[in-house]
Amino acid sequence: MEIDKITSRDVDFAKWYTDVCLSSDLVDYSTVKGSMIIRPLGYAIWENIEQILDKMFKETGHENVQMPMFIPESLLNVEKEHVEGFAPEVAWVTHGGKEKLEERMCVRPTSEVLFCDHYKKIIKTYRDLPKLYNQWCTIVRWEKTTRPFLRSREILWQEGHTMHRTSEEAIEETLKMFNIYKKFQEEYLAIPVITGRKTEKEKFAGAEITYTIEAMMYDGYALQNGTSHYFGNHFAEAFGIRFTDIDNTLKTPYQTSWGVSTRMIGSIIMVHGDNHGLVLPPKIAPFKVIIIPIGEVEEKLNDLKDKLNEANITYKTDETNKRPGYKFAEAEVKGYPIRIELGKRDLENNQVTLVRRDTLEKINVTYEEIIPTIKSLLETMQNDMYNKAKARRDKMIYDVKEYNELLAIAKNKPGFVKINWCGNSTCEDKIKEDTAMKSRCIIENEEISGPCVVCGKKATTRLYVGKQY
Amino acid sequence: MEIDKITSRDVDFAKWYTDVCLSSDLVDYSTVKGSMIIRPLGYAIWENIEQILDKMFKETGHENVQMPMFIPESLLNVEKEHVEGFAPEVAWVTHGGKEKLEERMCVRPTSEVLFCDHYKKIIKTYRDLPKLYNQWCTIVRWEKTTRPFLRSREILWQEGHTMHRTSEEAIEETLKMFNIYKKFQEEYLAIPVITGRKTEKEKFAGAEITYTIEAMMYDGYALQNGTSHYFGNHFAEAFGIRFTDIDNTLKTPYQTSWGVSTRMIGSIIMVHGDNHGLVLPPKIAPFKVIIIPIGEVEEKLNDLKDKLNEANITYKTDETNKRPGYKFAEAEVKGYPIRIELGKRDLENNQVTLVRRDTLEKINVTYEEIIPTIKSLLETMQNDMYNKAKARRDKMIYDVKEYNELLAIAKNKPGFVKINWCGNSTCEDKIKEDTAMKSRCIIENEEISGPCVVCGKKATTRLYVGKQY
Repeated sequence: MEIDKITSRDVDFAKWYTDVCLSSDLVDYSTVKGSMIIRPLGYAIWENIEQILDKMFKETGHENVQMPMFIPESLLNVEKEHVEGFAPEVAWVTHGGKEKLEERMCVRPTSEVLFCDHYKKIIKTYRDLPKLYNQWCTIVRWEKTTRPFLRSREILWQEGHTMHRTSEEAIEETLKMFNIYKKFQEEYLAIPVITGRKTEKEKFAGAEITYTIEAMMYDGYALQNGTSHYFGNHFAEAFGIRFTDIDNTLKTPYQTSWGVSTRMIGSIIMVHGDNHGLVLPPKIAPFKVIIIPIGEVEEKLNDLKDKLNEANITYKTDETNKRPGYKFAEAEVKGYPIRIELGKRDLENNQVTLVRRDTLEKINVTYEEIIPTIKSLLETMQNDMYNKAKARRDKMIYDVKEYNELLAIAKNKPGFVKINWCGNSTCEDKIKEDTAMKSRCIIENEEISGPCVVCGKKATTRLYVGKQY
Repeated sequence: MEIDKITSRDVDFAKWYTDVCLSSDLVDYSTVKGSMIIRPLGYAIWENIEQILDKMFKETGHENVQMPMFIPESLLNVEKEHVEGFAPEVAWVTHGGKEKLEERMCVRPTSEVLFCDHYKKIIKTYRDLPKLYNQWCTIVRWEKTTRPFLRSREILWQEGHTMHRTSEEAIEETLKMFNIYKKFQEEYLAIPVITGRKTEKEKFAGAEITYTIEAMMYDGYALQNGTSHYFGNHFAEAFGIRFTDIDNTLKTPYQTSWGVSTRMIGSIIMVHGDNHGLVLPPKIAPFKVIIIPIGEVEEKLNDLKDKLNEANITYKTDETNKRPGYKFAEAEVKGYPIRIELGKRDLENNQVTLVRRDTLEKINVTYEEIIPTIKSLLETMQNDMYNKAKARRDKMIYDVKEYNELLAIAKNKPGFVKINWCGNSTCEDKIKEDTAMKSRCIIENEEISGPCVVCGKKATTRLYVGKQY
């Protein structure tokens, strides 16, 4: 038995990513082209994400519902910008059994129109507002090239869709959920993120404002890890949603939507992973600890299991008859935060070895110290992983004043670039054409420090640009 | 404001059912034909079901995964009986964006073939067995006529798919999960069930044995509330799944699958509901209590909320300015197990009124007694609801020796009929043709008490027959 060899991440990052996804048993490819199989470890991570976020959503007054998964073509067509954005990448159902459908339907690529269709029926007066709904489901986008977690034809995600009496309240909701995403990614995934508004060009089809959460991967590429949209009342008007307000006049409500997906698992891999495989932040790891017994240690093993259960620390044990070195490597590939080597000889001296997955540091403790040491280690590791990722990211952010400098960085250095920008999309387009960098988000609260880096005219905005997944 | 009038369940049961589904805000119809919208109350019930069952699955060693939702036609065709059973009722995706697919794919109606396709890759030796996987997902079956929860084009469910080294182990698994379903429905849903093997004619397409859980609705009709299948190695052989056994020979593993769905919510409604609306068994109700403040009682209301939170009892409050009578009726429609009427005048005498939803009985208690009374009431109600449903069901089961008697019951009395049967499907067909009753399940451990009720030949089996949803 041998562990699958993982390509070095500095030699071929794309190959490294695929190697880690597959050898850690997170996912498998499927006969179904463009779709992936999420295996037990991958799905357990998603269950953790779902549980933590769902609690945050419910604490802020949101309720879960389940809408249909199909959208009849005429319903998709109601909002013009929206259909133009999505129609090219939907899967069309044309037959039910042997019969051709009167009207074809797509599998939802997102559910704004389905929620609007329902809201039209259930919103009558201001007393019915706000409506704060969310759903956990699978969506479909017909991608040509796919990669596990990053770009897949089927995506597991959550989508919040809310309706409000006033525009102010809807914008507040957009920002509230945006901040929940930011908090979740920084505190639980240990991923530092860059946040802000998308430019006109990059915002969601049909939205007035799109806020985005952007994470930087190990290779300097960006991953858009979540978005929160304010729609004004575009959709509500297109759908004819009206309510009687407090002043007894008919008004149109204001809408938001916000979503994150299994793509975040891709960012966990690409921010924290190393050449030994997956490295899971303690707070999101389904099993915090892996115990590897060496020799005849059954009694102590059972005692340790009791202790971990009592302390509410999730764990796995590897009691197969593989050799210890193999088990160590396998535990590393799968990213368990702490490995406990429970050896017969060590135990005779009342010693146990703990190994931190993030640093691979070995820590010898007495048997009695195990639980308190694990507890404090898990906290330390969570913080260390965040700080390490942040330090690396910060080093790969460049503040650029000259276009030539931007071109040079795009060619030679991975990372994000901060620029001064005139706000004109022709300059945005030129950057994309010359460098493959797209605008990530507008930077608030930073002073404009010169003219537009592209055209040299007056700059109105500070902007992050960067290559993306 | 007026509560929607609910049709009497003894006048028009079908209309009553729809009225309850809609006025309790469990579901709504959708513009998407054949699909339903599961509203917050309905989805919260499903979340409870999911949480309780998922814990039972995990405690018995099962892991969750997520398979693709599409099945290419050639993959569906691998197992012959299976495709014949499902092909007539699948939704076909034929186009991705503007392009016609090379091979059309259906949206999964069930996922045996997808799991087999994966198992073929990951099962190599006996060390890889058993594989105990489950998934929570949505499936699609292209039904012509649909009814909320009972028959829908989209169904939320779980499907377990397991692989085993031996046939004995697979049969044991089939029975284990069957018993978990039975326990769950009796203990949590307070629904007494009839359980047993399906006849050859009624078993799942491709299965060797199908065990079924059958519940009797208020109107005497059966609802199949869950099934557990033993496949032998039909699928494994069709897919060429082989493993090296302990004795170093190549063998084919044995397979099971088992599932329950949102259909169970339909049975909660039709077993426990009454003319005032939904009646939720305490153990499955998302909110055990609804508090209705009457007059200025803010201080006591806050105190009561604290007490309920402390006791871990979920609750809602109705603090709108509707009149109390309307609030009471609304609370009844939505099925909250206990209503607390928190009235200013009562509180002056240190009194509070509790109302049991199942019996509508009013109970006056002192303010201090609220929490302990609620706790014991919830337990009592759970048991009472089960016993009431069981007593009603038992009265509607008839033991029949003569075919004329069977015909008379089918015509005049709702319920299930027990018969002696020769085991021949022509007799099963004749019953169905004459009475619309289908065989529900084979009765084990009961002595055969005469000849086949249809043909008069020697009976080999005791059988339940009944009309079904």
